[in-house]
Amino acid sequence: MFFEKKGPHTLKKVSNICENSDSKHSESIKIDDIRDLSSASIKDITFFHSLKYKSEAKKTKALACITKKELEKYLPEKCLKILVKNVLLSVAKVGILFYPNSDIDPLDNSLLPSDEVKNKYKNVVFGKNVLVGKNVQIGKNTVIGNNTIVEHDVQIGENCHIGSFVSIKNSILENDVLLQDNVKIGVKGFGFIPDPNKNFRAPHIGKVVVKRGSEVGSGSTIDRGSMTDTIIGENTFIDNQVHIAHNVKIGKNCMIAGQVGFAGSSNIGNNVVIGGQAGISGHLNIGNNVSIGGGSGVIKDIPDNTKVMGYPSIEFKEFIKKWKSNE
Amino acid sequence: MFFEKKGPHTLKKVSNICENSDSKHSESIKIDDIRDLSSASIKDITFFHSLKYKSEAKKTKALACITKKELEKYLPEKCLKILVKNVLLSVAKVGILFYPNSDIDPLDNSLLPSDEVKNKYKNVVFGKNVLVGKNVQIGKNTVIGNNTIVEHDVQIGENCHIGSFVSIKNSILENDVLLQDNVKIGVKGFGFIPDPNKNFRAPHIGKVVVKRGSEVGSGSTIDRGSMTDTIIGENTFIDNQVHIAHNVKIGKNCMIAGQVGFAGSSNIGNNVVIGGQAGISGHLNIGNNVSIGGGSGVIKDIPDNTKVMGYPSIEFKEFIKKWKSNE
Amino acid sequence: MFFEKKGPHTLKKVSNICENSDSKHSESIKIDDIRDLSSASIKDITFFHSLKYKSEAKKTKALACITKKELEKYLPEKCLKILVKNVLLSVAKVGILFYPNSDIDPLDNSLLPSDEVKNKYKNVVFGKNVLVGKNVQIGKNTVIGNNTIVEHDVQIGENCHIGSFVSIKNSILENDVLLQDNVKIGVKGFGFIPDPNKNFRAPHIGKVVVKRGSEVGSGSTIDRGSMTDTIIGENTFIDNQVHIAHNVKIGKNCMIAGQVGFAGSSNIGNNVVIGGQAGISGHLNIGNNVSIGGGSGVIKDIPDNTKVMGYPSIEFKEFIKKWKSNE
Repeated sequence: MFFEKKGPHTLKKVSNICENSDSKHSESIKIDDIRDLSSASIKDITFFHSLKYKSEAKKTKALACITKKELEKYLPEKCLKILVKNVLLSVAKVGILFYPNSDIDPLDNSLLPSDEVKNKYKNVVFGKNVLVGKNVQIGKNTVIGNNTIVEHDVQIGENCHIGSFVSIKNSILENDVLLQDNVKIGVKGFGFIPDPNKNFRAPHIGKVVVKRGSEVGSGSTIDRGSMTDTIIGENTFIDNQVHIAHNVKIGKNCMIAGQVGFAGSSNIGNNVVIGGQAGISGHLNIGNNVSIGGGSGVIKDIPDNTKVMGYPSIEFKEFIKKWKSNE
Repeated sequence: MFFEKKGPHTLKKVSNICENSDSKHSESIKIDDIRDLSSASIKDITFFHSLKYKSEAKKTKALACITKKELEKYLPEKCLKILVKNVLLSVAKVGILFYPNSDIDPLDNSLLPSDEVKNKYKNVVFGKNVLVGKNVQIGKNTVIGNNTIVEHDVQIGENCHIGSFVSIKNSILENDVLLQDNVKIGVKGFGFIPDPNKNFRAPHIGKVVVKRGSEVGSGSTIDRGSMTDTIIGENTFIDNQVHIAHNVKIGKNCMIAGQVGFAGSSNIGNNVVIGGQAGISGHLNIGNNVSIGGGSGVIKDIPDNTKVMGYPSIEFKEFIKKWKSNE
Repeated sequence: MFFEKKGPHTLKKVSNICENSDSKHSESIKIDDIRDLSSASIKDITFFHSLKYKSEAKKTKALACITKKELEKYLPEKCLKILVKNVLLSVAKVGILFYPNSDIDPLDNSLLPSDEVKNKYKNVVFGKNVLVGKNVQIGKNTVIGNNTIVEHDVQIGENCHIGSFVSIKNSILENDVLLQDNVKIGVKGFGFIPDPNKNFRAPHIGKVVVKRGSEVGSGSTIDRGSMTDTIIGENTFIDNQVHIAHNVKIGKNCMIAGQVGFAGSSNIGNNVVIGGQAGISGHLNIGNNVSIGGGSGVIKDIPDNTKVMGYPSIEFKEFIKKWKSNE
């Protein structure tokens, strides 16, 4: 939707990009797209790099799969295997083949001053020096602040209030969303395959979805997803200078105070309250109704209805007990 | 001053908004404004939600007060009580009645390019693409950087130096203030009454005052006050990416290093030094001549002349002792 | 290069600025520049304020040196000593004499819209509302994003990708550098001599050098050096909202996650990995192949090939052992 898809490409071409020279990969087989194990169709290529995804691997419908020798046995027999040493590097390369430029934030050449396109947005209020890209949708009664940029194909709902110096790209904002001054949303995440000669940037073909009634504070950054989306749930309020990395999914009715940081791909439940400057490591599951004290460092999953604090975070009662015994 | 006040409103109307249906609240009684217990006059309504403010309650001159059953006895007999379940929610609703739009950062429709208004600012130097609102005052020899926005009614003193990409609203800057690139000052704070259907944003009718000779680093955000002001004292220097929440009051001659965060409503004394990434919880009193080590998490008051470090912070000597015993 | 040098100035004038009234400081002796102990030539003045630099002091070629009584014996006999009480204050004052305005981020009066200068940059792609200063060099195939400012004398290499709302001043970017939206680079650092009447800002005559293939994430700030440069090494990737203070030198192939902060003048080796929200104190030496866990507070040097975590940071194995024993 935000990144133009190229292809189809032959399995041979894809295979060559992966530096796999197995001659069985025919020129006659065409690949339509690259998707994860669950969402790949019979025309797509997928990837399987960790035993953690064994059950998804068994059920994948993908035509082909980038994987490594020791994992191929978990895949369906009819799935064509492309065996490589570094699965994620090959996935990144194939991702770029299908979605060129998704590894950067390409300049949007379609931007025009809002004065030139305001006839298309009759019930929208624009500040000064606003730039709007092609195919942008903006709902009625929405206000777009001064010097703000809304890039191509972005969708903004009704009654949204967007501040000044905001940049929105690769994003869908539902109704009643409020972004304060200087929010940057939809930028490429911090994902790459390290290489001492030249790091290889991972494609970021996901988007950001900000659900109904959410608020994002001044100076916060929300990266778009890599292969999936970054999601902010309904009625979730986020304070200033918060950093939300790629693929993070935050539930509804959460309250996230200033300078909190989320590493990539964590799932945060509903009604979660996070104090200022707390940090949430990557790939964690934080339950519903969780409360995380300010300054905490969360490095493992947290079950529902739990209150934690500390670095690394522990149960709140334990934290207070230790603190009092230390004084 | 920055938000237009509506009213007067009848006590009945105010009472209805509070969802208090007590018939004694007459249509003939008019309310002029909403103010805190100490500053409310005989024509104003005030609010009293915590025993912490008992002594102010006893002395209030307010005509009426939003409070709850168990607190009404502390108020003067002649003060009309509006009893509600959720005092802060009612206060927010009444605040919005008197100050519509103070719960967001409304678009300033009065902004004009500095080229069009520069005759009014003969001794001011403007960069490119500067936007200036109505009734803005700027002192002589002040420089306003490129792409910067100065919204309506803002006052900037003499010899100030404002960087590029700065946004100033609802603020008063005294003389000799320096704001580096990308400072966002005067935005709405992170205050709301949580509601799983739709959070209710608290009005923010306070301003930001930056006193003589202060400096604010690049990317820092300073929220305006809710019912009071956010204040940065004289000759206080603040580094990059610092977050200062609503109602925080910082004294003079302080030094605040990068990425420090202040939760709301704390009072910081004079000559306070705060190391990088420290966090100060809300509603604290930090004394004069206090030194807070980098990365500390301050969760209780600190007396004058104290040096602390740690998360949570303890006396510096204790911290060093523990650290050495741990190595 | 970025700041115009004034002078030469007489030794008498320099001496007076230092509030040293020693009559031996002749009007006939001219000083060309102010430099550190190692780089000062026979025509320059230097400074020596700490025993830490004793060996450099012994070998300095400087014509004159600002120092204090107890240190003068370490300097070569023929070096003219200017004895003062507060060396750094005198150095700041003399620095401003030679480099006026280097203590702020002066407005660049030379900026022009890219449309007016694009003939000089035929192989460069500019977004909308870009401002470019005089003597700016930009290599071929470089893209400069919307609303971005490139100030005078900045050098940007080939194949660079600069996002929107970026401000670049006093900086050299080599080839293949990527700056995401809202990076602010080259601003004055947080350096001043505290004075309860009026802090005295230190000159910042250094620049920022971003080497080949580096990436800087959205909202990050990189301050220019004071007397030396701030350097980001080759192929080093930096995430969002990172703060890099003046004079920090980061090696090559480093990975620095979101919201990390560096205090001034630290040296970071090659292949260093730093987790989110970690803080690195000032004036430290961090070795090669060091790994620093997220949220850590580093307050002492770290040798090569070491993995640390914690606040303050300790060896990773120790940290995990303690954490497990606490659970």
